[in-house]
Amino acid sequence: MTKYLYTGARLLDNRIVCLVTEGERITYIGEARPEGVFDRIIDCRGNLLMSGFYNTHCHAAMTLFRGYGEDMSLREWLDTRILPAEDRLDDDKVYYGSLLAIAEMLASGIVSFSDMYFFCDKTANAVLDSGIKANISRSLVSFEEGMTARNDPRFLEGVSLARDYHGKGDGRLLVDLSIHAEYSNVESYIRDVSDYTAENGFRMQLHLSETEKEHNDCIARRGKTPTEFFYDCGTFRSPTTCAHGVWLTEGDMDILAACGATVSHNPCSNLKLGSGVARVSTLMAHGVNVGLGTDGAASNNSLDFFREMYVASLIAKGAACDPTVGRAEDVLRMATVNGAKAQGRYDCGEVKVGNRADLILVSLDDVNTMPTYDASYTVLYAAKAANLKMTVVDGRILYENGEYTTLDIEKIKDSFKRVCDY
Amino acid sequence: MTKYLYTGARLLDNRIVCLVTEGERITYIGEARPEGVFDRIIDCRGNLLMSGFYNTHCHAAMTLFRGYGEDMSLREWLDTRILPAEDRLDDDKVYYGSLLAIAEMLASGIVSFSDMYFFCDKTANAVLDSGIKANISRSLVSFEEGMTARNDPRFLEGVSLARDYHGKGDGRLLVDLSIHAEYSNVESYIRDVSDYTAENGFRMQLHLSETEKEHNDCIARRGKTPTEFFYDCGTFRSPTTCAHGVWLTEGDMDILAACGATVSHNPCSNLKLGSGVARVSTLMAHGVNVGLGTDGAASNNSLDFFREMYVASLIAKGAACDPTVGRAEDVLRMATVNGAKAQGRYDCGEVKVGNRADLILVSLDDVNTMPTYDASYTVLYAAKAANLKMTVVDGRILYENGEYTTLDIEKIKDSFKRVCDY
Repeated sequence: MTKYLYTGARLLDNRIVCLVTEGERITYIGEARPEGVFDRIIDCRGNLLMSGFYNTHCHAAMTLFRGYGEDMSLREWLDTRILPAEDRLDDDKVYYGSLLAIAEMLASGIVSFSDMYFFCDKTANAVLDSGIKANISRSLVSFEEGMTARNDPRFLEGVSLARDYHGKGDGRLLVDLSIHAEYSNVESYIRDVSDYTAENGFRMQLHLSETEKEHNDCIARRGKTPTEFFYDCGTFRSPTTCAHGVWLTEGDMDILAACGATVSHNPCSNLKLGSGVARVSTLMAHGVNVGLGTDGAASNNSLDFFREMYVASLIAKGAACDPTVGRAEDVLRMATVNGAKAQGRYDCGEVKVGNRADLILVSLDDVNTMPTYDASYTVLYAAKAANLKMTVVDGRILYENGEYTTLDIEKIKDSFKRVCDY
Repeated sequence: MTKYLYTGARLLDNRIVCLVTEGERITYIGEARPEGVFDRIIDCRGNLLMSGFYNTHCHAAMTLFRGYGEDMSLREWLDTRILPAEDRLDDDKVYYGSLLAIAEMLASGIVSFSDMYFFCDKTANAVLDSGIKANISRSLVSFEEGMTARNDPRFLEGVSLARDYHGKGDGRLLVDLSIHAEYSNVESYIRDVSDYTAENGFRMQLHLSETEKEHNDCIARRGKTPTEFFYDCGTFRSPTTCAHGVWLTEGDMDILAACGATVSHNPCSNLKLGSGVARVSTLMAHGVNVGLGTDGAASNNSLDFFREMYVASLIAKGAACDPTVGRAEDVLRMATVNGAKAQGRYDCGEVKVGNRADLILVSLDDVNTMPTYDASYTVLYAAKAANLKMTVVDGRILYENGEYTTLDIEKIKDSFKRVCDY
């Protein structure tokens, strides 16, 4: 079992400690340097050692469409760019698009991501090849009234995905179910998928109240909010990650809190698409678990948690005209332990003995991270992906000083260029 | 005269060209590779070549206070942290604080910055030592009713600064005058400084309508907005850069447009301090020149124009709930030619023959900048300072692949740590 010793590491609470990992777990944290034989001793002086980040909403392969049409209305962008482009997706595009996304995520400290997309077995293989963690799901849509899921090839694809990949890579890869959204599905299908998900113990991912129009259209169509509708369909019996949640009512928030659902806050994507700003302080006050997500690179246009955390804090303060909200401790919890919880990874997201060793090392000694009065302020407000020195997933170093240990990055970039023919 | 040839460079309009610099000027741009002998040939394939950035509002030495108190109210932060800390400033603190700021700015493509602070001769020397450009100014305050400037030591310090440093470094270093703000000065003093500035042909820097309270207090106190008040004091006879402008009325905007003033939009600082969001689209519609600024690192907490541009676009779209505003072309103009104009650098900010060679090279071939459909979208929405390969000021390469040509960065960091004793 691989045994690493990290020395002189500064934690978020500014203590300087030694830390030991054995295999995929953290087995020691303390001021005293432990005795023993180690496969490697990592000198962390001048660096923050903290939990890696859990990206609770992504469409990884959409790196293919980064910058493919900008500054246009949502409808025009979807109709003239994204939907026609997605119609041309294939195995290779999704595999290399996902690999490029994973490389970008590892380089910003993301150790795990939740994904909703198509050709999911290709994303699954990219996850397994890279060593990152992920909760992947086949995004389900249904437009035919009265339609059920059990004989729908898309649903069956999701079920096969779960059968073939759930728990693979020592539990790094999990398969969730996914109902794309209220507006893109009929009730009978949603009920059917919700039953299957609950009966088989899976987790659920969906888009929820992202835009005002979508939220209000649902009320007009069904006489209830999207949250009320999903609740009535039994969807929230399964632990659910709801992406966006910009237009949730306080009643919706109470439902989500009672059901133990997570809202994945995607501030960059929501601002960039003009969807609005999720009311994170209110969500937290209602007891909802709030994680952070990048959404796809087409609407962000980056998969960078340093940027996402910074914008999350900024927009909380800015929208409330109050610098005391969007606090460092809250945003950092959203990015780490809350996200891990959303993914059902209860032994992740905090640096403590017994937990999985999902760790990042961030330099506090670069021109833009000096001085550091409090490491939590530096990592949230000043640090950038460029200050990331190392990303560790389940004790395994996947990224170090700009180099990948599991990915042949030049080959991936070449393959990506070859398949990205839009 | 140093002669450089840049080959295979992609411009913002996506043309691939060769570009020649001779001394501090651009002397050729074209598809054909020119003949001749060059001191260096720079292969730009896979990179965007564009104008460097002009940071129109900064307090460079405030890198000393980066992260020194966060998540607190503006009043508490100023009273318990910033003001006591500024009271302990000295020559060394400002010199090394400024040098660290300049290093950070060069590493994010900033070629010139406007600065308001104290111990300005130290910032001036940091500018000259580094090779960057700057418009520096001694920030003036006055609280004694009826007080005039001409025998005030602070004002005389500003005048000496202008005498000793204005135009130094082949015009790279300019000295402006600075009235700190309406609320921190008495009318007699403002009139006096404004007269001196206009009579002697200097430019002006000030803070304007940053917070709602400050804006409304002025109306209550003086019966006019801060903009109307400065106009009546004759301040805007000089070309003026007004930092923030969050609470400007449309009448204020008309005054600023008519006077040829610039509003320096500081989205990160304004959001982080909860001051609000400047109405940039409205400012532009009124014909006001809008530049971009980082403010000091104490309230940002970074001096990174990639981040500032991204947030500027995001908050424009987000505040308007409209993805078609905060357009790439507008934000990139704010960051470049509009900023250069604000600083009186009329031969800067655009890549064209005859202009000063203030250039940056940005990789379009990194994991987070692939693919590039349009270089202007990539640089605004996806690129980060980590993708910056080179920063050139007046034809001179100051930063290349993480290394500085004029700054001994390890020595600066050590000196900064020594003096930053808060």
